Amino acid sequence: MQLELSKEYLERLETAIEKRDEAFIRESMDGEHPADISSVLYELDTAQSKYVIDLLPREVSAEIISSLDGDTQRKFLKAFTSAELAELIPYVDSDDAADLLNQQPVKFREEVIALINDAETANHIIELLHYDEDCAGGLMAKELIKANINWTVVQCIEEIRRQAEDVEKIFSVYVVDDEDKLLGRVSLKKIILARAYTRIADIYEDDIIAVESYRDSEEVAEMMQKYDLETIPVVNIQGKLLGRITIDDVVDVITEQAELDQQMMSGLSQPEEEDDGVLTSAKARLPWLLIGMGGGLLGARFAGFFEADIKLIPAMAFFIPLITATGGNVGIQSSTVVVQSLTNASFLGNSFYNRIVKVLLVALINAAVISTLVFLFNILTGSALQLALVVSIALFSVVILASLMGTITPIILNRFEINPALASGPFITTANDLLGLAVYFGVAHWLYNL
Amino acid sequence: MQLELSKEYLERLETAIEKRDEAFIRESMDGEHPADISSVLYELDTAQSKYVIDLLPREVSAEIISSLDGDTQRKFLKAFTSAELAELIPYVDSDDAADLLNQQPVKFREEVIALINDAETANHIIELLHYDEDCAGGLMAKELIKANINWTVVQCIEEIRRQAEDVEKIFSVYVVDDEDKLLGRVSLKKIILARAYTRIADIYEDDIIAVESYRDSEEVAEMMQKYDLETIPVVNIQGKLLGRITIDDVVDVITEQAELDQQMMSGLSQPEEEDDGVLTSAKARLPWLLIGMGGGLLGARFAGFFEADIKLIPAMAFFIPLITATGGNVGIQSSTVVVQSLTNASFLGNSFYNRIVKVLLVALINAAVISTLVFLFNILTGSALQLALVVSIALFSVVILASLMGTITPIILNRFEINPALASGPFITTANDLLGLAVYFGVAHWLYNL
Repeated sequence: MQLELSKEYLERLETAIEKRDEAFIRESMDGEHPADISSVLYELDTAQSKYVIDLLPREVSAEIISSLDGDTQRKFLKAFTSAELAELIPYVDSDDAADLLNQQPVKFREEVIALINDAETANHIIELLHYDEDCAGGLMAKELIKANINWTVVQCIEEIRRQAEDVEKIFSVYVVDDEDKLLGRVSLKKIILARAYTRIADIYEDDIIAVESYRDSEEVAEMMQKYDLETIPVVNIQGKLLGRITIDDVVDVITEQAELDQQMMSGLSQPEEEDDGVLTSAKARLPWLLIGMGGGLLGARFAGFFEADIKLIPAMAFFIPLITATGGNVGIQSSTVVVQSLTNASFLGNSFYNRIVKVLLVALINAAVISTLVFLFNILTGSALQLALVVSIALFSVVILASLMGTITPIILNRFEINPALASGPFITTANDLLGLAVYFGVAHWLYNL
Repeated sequence: MQLELSKEYLERLETAIEKRDEAFIRESMDGEHPADISSVLYELDTAQSKYVIDLLPREVSAEIISSLDGDTQRKFLKAFTSAELAELIPYVDSDDAADLLNQQPVKFREEVIALINDAETANHIIELLHYDEDCAGGLMAKELIKANINWTVVQCIEEIRRQAEDVEKIFSVYVVDDEDKLLGRVSLKKIILARAYTRIADIYEDDIIAVESYRDSEEVAEMMQKYDLETIPVVNIQGKLLGRITIDDVVDVITEQAELDQQMMSGLSQPEEEDDGVLTSAKARLPWLLIGMGGGLLGARFAGFFEADIKLIPAMAFFIPLITATGGNVGIQSSTVVVQSLTNASFLGNSFYNRIVKVLLVALINAAVISTLVFLFNILTGSALQLALVVSIALFSVVILASLMGTITPIILNRFEINPALASGPFITTANDLLGLAVYFGVAHWLYNL
């Protein structure tokens, strides 16, 4: 079934597009999963993709467009008129429709909404557009099945039948009271196994986990992960049922968050995508490089105070990279472990002390191993005893200090609700470079002036 | 409903455990979600947790134990006898049971399996234990509903009723032929809406996406993400239905993979958990620190060749950290972007060239900005023109070279099917330090000997 994304197929497809060979295109894509067709479109340019999209059945085109990732989608939709887009919108879920329109210029967005035939769809989208993209309201879809608690199973099945076309995937039916307040849920399994005139009130589960519309999307992801949910209902502060979030949207949130954290750790100040332009990429990378540069220049000024020492013992300069690199490596290791444990487990105040003790012990072991090995190496390769001592004492101190800094910085950032991933990046590296230099020259000055 | 994890509650609970106050413990945990009780147990020690677990209903205890993460679970289960564990096993899904037993010593595992009352459960687990944990077979559960294609809807509902207790969450019914070969699926929605004597053959969807049992778990995660699946059936090479994988297990795979990649980028050679012992942590961190150390010592030897230069112009030494840090920062930025694009999109060979051109352009801009700023700074702060030139030319070259290396290394690693995240870590940092030193001293030697 899966469309094979081969160079041969792509070449044939491009020729077909050029020759306007509709038959080949329609045939080769017939019955293929929209996600597979998307992969093909990623290899074509906008005009080619638009030509292909126009040949596909509307529900497939709509699905493909809504599955494109943010940036590609925005660029691609420029090729559509508002009327074209308005025709596709009713084929996608309301959450995807809102995400899609959110990316458009206001005027274009209003035009599209005005042109949507189905009033209910339009209203749903208008409602969803009010929510911030990064909160539960921004993730939820309006499509769901709800049943009044006073209904019977037969009435509930009637409602499922009525909504069957709009709600593609049904995991469970939400149970509400006359004011639409969420009371619980009934699984489809229970509905199938119940007798026709059983009352919903007698079979529903009332301990349902719901999320308020204003909650952060990361919080939603954590909840769904913690409780192994494939869908979670969204309510307002009065407990009224507003929509539902499905796990596929949350998986995207989790993946994006992991990527953002990685980028932050690597010193990219804005989310960078592979297909960003040269200037955008350069701009995303520059801020942290400038901070690193500032740190480097500060380090140079600082080292300048020790010009006389270096002139006297030029060999001291040789070990500068060893000192700064070790500090950086240790700092990044420590902060990564701490950052991950901050996102994984909730820990109460008292473990802070234990954590520091453990970090110190680990650092002591590694500091001892490394400084001993370096000392032996230096002595064996004929360095002066005093220099070997300076290097190893400095290394030892740098490992301990960098461990502490790598551990404490993310914890502090986290307390102030700043993303601790920031700490694992160039910030730690730059700070550790300065720290390393200070310790190194400090120790040297002290030992040589004994 | 949610158990509040407050210091006060924990203190009361610990007192209750000490006083063997069963009533308080049972009451305060009654009706709570197992995941919430787990969070509480994470704050207790093993003996305390064991005491609490023994007081809870078996299905709750079983759920809690299976939800613990790998390391904690292994440690905690040491407090259980094989008979105790065998009693809990039938309450968890077969995939969780297999994961749990996989962590145990062989003898203990065999004892537990021999003590399981239900022969079907035991057989399922034995079958699942054969699969590697990191493949589709290792992720799948045996609990699923399957219907023969020749059945009617009524027969199918009978099967659901029969299995209702074992299969907690039903998303759809898998359709098989007489040889158990997977033919397709029917959603519960369709079953609800169909007439009783409709044949399954008339309502099932035959374009089902399945996965072979030997597929890598990352591949499973990618497929489920790509096609927005909440469950995927697992088949053997003959297409026989073996089990199903649910999205909650895949979400765990995605999260773990992101953490592992982050750790690898930070130079942790083994997965490190917050609760690892001191020695384990030290060991996980040491290998990369030693590589960094080796790089540093090599750098020192290399710099040694230029002892005369440094003696003559000690100020040269001041800028070593600036050069190496900038190289490291640029290298990590580039490799992170490449690593993420490698995992996200499939790209064909021809874009390699475009990628390099773009990387070069971005690098040129940033190299120009940074080297100009540093040049101005050096001139304004009274450095010699020649030194300022050396530093800026070296910086410029290092930014370009580190960009190229950060881009090419992960692509090459990926070609050889080595995890490209490795490249973003200390490997790049160490290699860039050496590269930076070589360029710096090279440029200096060349410029001063003009």
